[in-house]
Amino acid sequence: MMNISNADRAHVLVEALPHIQKYAGKIMVVKYGGNAMTDPELKEAVMSDVVLLTQVGVRVVLVHGGGPEISALLEKTGKDSTFVNGLRVTDDETVDIVQMVLAGKTNKDLVKLLQQKGALGLGLCGIDGKMIMAQQMDPELGYVGEITHVNTDVILDSLSKGYIPVIASVAGDEEGNSWNVNADTAAWKIAAALKAESLINLTNTSGILRDVDDPDSLIKTLRISQAEQLIAAGVISGGSIPKAEACIEAVRQGVRKVFIIDGRVPHSMLIETLTDEGMGTMFLEG
Amino acid sequence: MMNISNADRAHVLVEALPHIQKYAGKIMVVKYGGNAMTDPELKEAVMSDVVLLTQVGVRVVLVHGGGPEISALLEKTGKDSTFVNGLRVTDDETVDIVQMVLAGKTNKDLVKLLQQKGALGLGLCGIDGKMIMAQQMDPELGYVGEITHVNTDVILDSLSKGYIPVIASVAGDEEGNSWNVNADTAAWKIAAALKAESLINLTNTSGILRDVDDPDSLIKTLRISQAEQLIAAGVISGGSIPKAEACIEAVRQGVRKVFIIDGRVPHSMLIETLTDEGMGTMFLEG
Amino acid sequence: MMNISNADRAHVLVEALPHIQKYAGKIMVVKYGGNAMTDPELKEAVMSDVVLLTQVGVRVVLVHGGGPEISALLEKTGKDSTFVNGLRVTDDETVDIVQMVLAGKTNKDLVKLLQQKGALGLGLCGIDGKMIMAQQMDPELGYVGEITHVNTDVILDSLSKGYIPVIASVAGDEEGNSWNVNADTAAWKIAAALKAESLINLTNTSGILRDVDDPDSLIKTLRISQAEQLIAAGVISGGSIPKAEACIEAVRQGVRKVFIIDGRVPHSMLIETLTDEGMGTMFLEG
Amino acid sequence: MMNISNADRAHVLVEALPHIQKYAGKIMVVKYGGNAMTDPELKEAVMSDVVLLTQVGVRVVLVHGGGPEISALLEKTGKDSTFVNGLRVTDDETVDIVQMVLAGKTNKDLVKLLQQKGALGLGLCGIDGKMIMAQQMDPELGYVGEITHVNTDVILDSLSKGYIPVIASVAGDEEGNSWNVNADTAAWKIAAALKAESLINLTNTSGILRDVDDPDSLIKTLRISQAEQLIAAGVISGGSIPKAEACIEAVRQGVRKVFIIDGRVPHSMLIETLTDEGMGTMFLEG
Amino acid sequence: MMNISNADRAHVLVEALPHIQKYAGKIMVVKYGGNAMTDPELKEAVMSDVVLLTQVGVRVVLVHGGGPEISALLEKTGKDSTFVNGLRVTDDETVDIVQMVLAGKTNKDLVKLLQQKGALGLGLCGIDGKMIMAQQMDPELGYVGEITHVNTDVILDSLSKGYIPVIASVAGDEEGNSWNVNADTAAWKIAAALKAESLINLTNTSGILRDVDDPDSLIKTLRISQAEQLIAAGVISGGSIPKAEACIEAVRQGVRKVFIIDGRVPHSMLIETLTDEGMGTMFLEG
Amino acid sequence: MMNISNADRAHVLVEALPHIQKYAGKIMVVKYGGNAMTDPELKEAVMSDVVLLTQVGVRVVLVHGGGPEISALLEKTGKDSTFVNGLRVTDDETVDIVQMVLAGKTNKDLVKLLQQKGALGLGLCGIDGKMIMAQQMDPELGYVGEITHVNTDVILDSLSKGYIPVIASVAGDEEGNSWNVNADTAAWKIAAALKAESLINLTNTSGILRDVDDPDSLIKTLRISQAEQLIAAGVISGGSIPKAEACIEAVRQGVRKVFIIDGRVPHSMLIETLTDEGMGTMFLEG
Repeated sequence: MMNISNADRAHVLVEALPHIQKYAGKIMVVKYGGNAMTDPELKEAVMSDVVLLTQVGVRVVLVHGGGPEISALLEKTGKDSTFVNGLRVTDDETVDIVQMVLAGKTNKDLVKLLQQKGALGLGLCGIDGKMIMAQQMDPELGYVGEITHVNTDVILDSLSKGYIPVIASVAGDEEGNSWNVNADTAAWKIAAALKAESLINLTNTSGILRDVDDPDSLIKTLRISQAEQLIAAGVISGGSIPKAEACIEAVRQGVRKVFIIDGRVPHSMLIETLTDEGMGTMFLEG
Repeated sequence: MMNISNADRAHVLVEALPHIQKYAGKIMVVKYGGNAMTDPELKEAVMSDVVLLTQVGVRVVLVHGGGPEISALLEKTGKDSTFVNGLRVTDDETVDIVQMVLAGKTNKDLVKLLQQKGALGLGLCGIDGKMIMAQQMDPELGYVGEITHVNTDVILDSLSKGYIPVIASVAGDEEGNSWNVNADTAAWKIAAALKAESLINLTNTSGILRDVDDPDSLIKTLRISQAEQLIAAGVISGGSIPKAEACIEAVRQGVRKVFIIDGRVPHSMLIETLTDEGMGTMFLEG
Repeated sequence: MMNISNADRAHVLVEALPHIQKYAGKIMVVKYGGNAMTDPELKEAVMSDVVLLTQVGVRVVLVHGGGPEISALLEKTGKDSTFVNGLRVTDDETVDIVQMVLAGKTNKDLVKLLQQKGALGLGLCGIDGKMIMAQQMDPELGYVGEITHVNTDVILDSLSKGYIPVIASVAGDEEGNSWNVNADTAAWKIAAALKAESLINLTNTSGILRDVDDPDSLIKTLRISQAEQLIAAGVISGGSIPKAEACIEAVRQGVRKVFIIDGRVPHSMLIETLTDEGMGTMFLEG
Repeated sequence: MMNISNADRAHVLVEALPHIQKYAGKIMVVKYGGNAMTDPELKEAVMSDVVLLTQVGVRVVLVHGGGPEISALLEKTGKDSTFVNGLRVTDDETVDIVQMVLAGKTNKDLVKLLQQKGALGLGLCGIDGKMIMAQQMDPELGYVGEITHVNTDVILDSLSKGYIPVIASVAGDEEGNSWNVNADTAAWKIAAALKAESLINLTNTSGILRDVDDPDSLIKTLRISQAEQLIAAGVISGGSIPKAEACIEAVRQGVRKVFIIDGRVPHSMLIETLTDEGMGTMFLEG
Repeated sequence: MMNISNADRAHVLVEALPHIQKYAGKIMVVKYGGNAMTDPELKEAVMSDVVLLTQVGVRVVLVHGGGPEISALLEKTGKDSTFVNGLRVTDDETVDIVQMVLAGKTNKDLVKLLQQKGALGLGLCGIDGKMIMAQQMDPELGYVGEITHVNTDVILDSLSKGYIPVIASVAGDEEGNSWNVNADTAAWKIAAALKAESLINLTNTSGILRDVDDPDSLIKTLRISQAEQLIAAGVISGGSIPKAEACIEAVRQGVRKVFIIDGRVPHSMLIETLTDEGMGTMFLEG
Repeated sequence: MMNISNADRAHVLVEALPHIQKYAGKIMVVKYGGNAMTDPELKEAVMSDVVLLTQVGVRVVLVHGGGPEISALLEKTGKDSTFVNGLRVTDDETVDIVQMVLAGKTNKDLVKLLQQKGALGLGLCGIDGKMIMAQQMDPELGYVGEITHVNTDVILDSLSKGYIPVIASVAGDEEGNSWNVNADTAAWKIAAALKAESLINLTNTSGILRDVDDPDSLIKTLRISQAEQLIAAGVISGGSIPKAEACIEAVRQGVRKVFIIDGRVPHSMLIETLTDEGMGTMFLEG
């Protein structure tokens, strides 16, 4: 137990007030992944944060993909994977495993955690209520899907009834197939379809760094035009490019604020949204 | 394509009218299992029936357990099972498999089928919104749960928003455990908690037979007092006893009509509920 | 009692599903007239059909004129009629008789029939709630009215409260006069004002025939441009022209589908709307 | 045009205030009959009053029987009437005439008058929405009905949508028959079923007179126990007895205030309800 | 008690009907001031009128400034006032006195009077719910405010819950200052922001006179273009100019009818709005 | 600015979660008085706390009396006060001053402060909407009122529309008088009438002390039976008795938790309600 004075307690709570007012009644989509999803303590911290944000009036939507559990089950069942351009080919057996793990295990376990913190969750995937519709991305990749449409009805219905929707990145189509879709893409497309106030990406990085080797070079705010220049200039490079591009696209499609924050720091989401300090990088229009 | 005259078509539709009126706005819980769950054609027929009943104003709730898919995955993953009194011991690895298959595979696949027939489904399990709460039945059996409480809010919220709730027989508790619960029990407890108009058990039998060797000895209507006498007299015996007892208990707890019908006959549910003929056995108060 | 197998029963019900889904929540205006209005058995069949359609989610509005009952009462009261261009001159005594028979007898008797089939009806005429406003068509014809405006509030209010509105073709005006208006016109103007999904005209013909002497030459679907060509080409001729023109106008004013069907065949309306077979002629945009 | 000073105008309006407050949102059932129904000027005055009361927040329900129009039509059609104990035998031809005149003519004409004064009316009879259910009173009298049940749903639905329900005293039953019911009885039974604030009987008398020959002996307020004593003592006698008894019964069944007022005086209803003066006799509990 | 015949009473009430219908559900803003605010009898008459108008369906909003009570309290507290261009300089002590008297005394006393007449009032000022926002008009005048924005939410919320909002002419700003604002201006800006049906100015004049010395030269109706011509021509002059200009501006900003009426005549507001006679001058668009 | 680590910030916020959940949607009545009402900095701290509590879902109602401002205005206006048993005699001039200061100055100034912190306030007194009704307590004391009834409609209406009701302790009656009522009593009677979750009394004491000279002897939780024993035993004595008795009565009338907390410590209310620490004394049933 930390040793914090009552004056400090009061200070922190009062400091949170304008942030709470800013987010009241707004939708916040949280893309949950990385260490925050595998480390049990961080997992608990994230769930606390989601419930606290919900309690102060934010309408949180949690989107997740799978972690190492998919590979583990594939391995256990002796299923070998082939790869095309570094992407795992998802045949029908594999998509079954993916759906089972994401929608049956990871998803419902997150619901349980949220509920232990005092909220009510609803464990959904893109199939439910035809929420995420997809089509084949590339015949060679099998059931790897490209999202064609997001129907926000199920999400809004869940929120209106007071549940936190927890959404696994599995999509459907009109023919009854299941599709393995990228969770980052699902998150920003859901945020855009909801015209969310914010999209928070929990990652294993501290945000966009001006100098990748200098952790103090974190860029706190990025207009999307600046972000594009940083990509062009090679400052944002490698694996950061797709993440940055997804953030840019989300802002362009109507999400007000898009964050990349460090999921390895406990309660980073709370610090970002309810304190004056902030963490990570925020993408904005302009 | 069958050769049915227009007059016959009209006759069947008009005959359905009083049945439709009787069920309009009422809740019908369907326990889905047996052949109807494994034979693809029967599966399609059941889903058509559910959607049609929904369309004519019945509020259908679908409850299911798992079929052979659980055993298949256990086997594939090389997981050996031990048995106590003929019941599979459900250790933590096993309950994970059960949850994955039921809530991630069987459940979402049913949602897809319903949606192909034109309805919107919501794939839930007893964990979602704290719907089914359970506790340990017997320490030797591990995560085999006994249902302690059914919270109908999630189900009623789903129905009120126009979705067909599809419910996998996995329960939760306040500590964050998952419990493997009996699907027949889950179905009747849900029906009782909802004060449902009817509970339909789709089975691999044609109903309760007065003479187990004479398929023509089907009992069409059974007051629960009569049913108890038949059990006492040994007419209902063996594997039929627990099924009959669940039906008796459901009626006693407030479900108006409880049916055992033959899931091996296509559209048996429709024939039971929307035609003058009927199939199977109906349990009633008295 | 017909001899229909359970499989056939199920087949008919399942076949109805997509039709039911197509019409769910949509408004269907039924113009009731001809034999279907005078033959007691056909009358019962029509009322069954209306109630069944209501029960499966269609919002039916019934519009009717008078049958031979007007002439019968005129005759009984010794009232002689004069004719101008074949149209009966409607003096003030006559319009009183028309109003009494249509709004007091035919109308309320239809309400009783619907209610015997299990629905709740509301017997209205164009005067109620200023629903149908009219003006004089031709001074020589007296109280024969031309519809100037349809106010759908009363109809929508009735539907929203769960009643089937039954509407007699009598109109009002701001000065307190009653007007005898053509029931076919009233029906299509009501359908157009409601932006109805469909308008069904129950007539004593099987529909539009390509060859008036060949009952097998029924045209099942007519784009309104084709219908105009058939009138121009003389294929549609004589008494069929005004009926066809009313159908064309209804489609043009926003009714999605307009049917002419044979009211002499029991349950023709049900067969047209809930089976794959269909009967009669459907007019569509294009 | 009368010569009233502005001060007097203001006085009358201000005097109305407490009366308006007393009736705001309350239901007032008006039994319309006698001269007020046959004299065109009185008719207009009554309709003005109803609309004014509606406008100031009273929820008025108008109930009427027929006047001389029934006899006129019976006569015109050459229908002879037989009488039993002074009551006209209502055979099936007669009940048809009664229904036509009441529900088709008188009723809709009243709706027109209300609408000319600026309100919206809904012309109903006891058949609509199964509002008034009746059974045979006496086999010798044919279709003379005794009211067995009043269903207030249609009336309350009409009021909630802002219409003035105008109700003709024709009842139905489950078998599809129409019944000629007494309008006074219909009015008080409707008032009782609605738990109305008041029931106003418009009659051709000035109220209950202590001395039938002395118009100045009007009794302004009568507790129902007093009324019973006056009947027992012969003060209320002859044709006044059934009227008084209906008033007593209405109060006993829950109507707060029941009035007998003089329909021959223009706007007597307004004077009774919105001025300090009052007219006629008021029956109260006690 | 005046001697008015029942016929006259009825006449006045019936005459009010079309006026009541015209105003039903509409918003009427009443600027309360002058003698009507200081003479106890006139005060009661105004409150009766407001409650009566409320009762017949008008949604009345009462706006007031202060009368001699402000000067009285300033004097009592020994506070001297300085004047600039004839306007009292409002220093911080003075604005406190103004706020106290207007919002604490005059305002709540009006609420009490309304409630004694049977309505429910809500005593508000421009500070409540940020209803009236103002800024400094002239540094020399201190806390004399110029209205910059009217937020109608509080007013509409009060009306929707059935209260009569009574509004004192004190405004606020974002910094927490109070501003003394002109009540006439507050009234017309509130009326304009509400898109009110009418604005009634209770004054100590009988309206706009064509000849200021001839009380019979009252102009009953003025198009705003005519009003501007009368100002230009000097017919409207002196202290009448700002009042007329406020009326013109109110009409221009969307208030349908703006009245100047004589608050010295009891019930002048009632006579203007609910009788055919009318009093005072009405400004209209055109 | 204090130096608090992000981990500490997060800790405080997460610690607040269960407290927030406990109070979500519940009503908290705050009796505002003492130093917290006169020291500008404490005043700001209280207003921040109220707004923060509102923002996290608590429905706060603020009740206040007057501070030294009443005496100041009485003095300024040269009004001498007489005292009976130590209570100031409230003649009509005095009650006017009280009403002006409380309802016009203190009240609206609090509304302004709340609004500067980002909420919307509604400045009311017991007169508005007949919220607090009182009668004379003692003829010698003049307009000192005893509360006879609290009508919660206005308060609940304000809360339902999203305003923080700020209530001055001035009451009304049916005759149009104003009454000076005790603010502590008003607060607990309002809390009781609202069946509030909690009542917070902001005082100039740290709570109930077991030893009045030992600030460390604070009693954190008191069952009301214990509180009565402490009064009987003389532990609670002097000026603490009426405060303690009001707390006991409030609990007895249905308020769940009643607090006496130290308004001299900034944000004491926040620390009491949203941290694990707590301050002051809590009274509970039992």
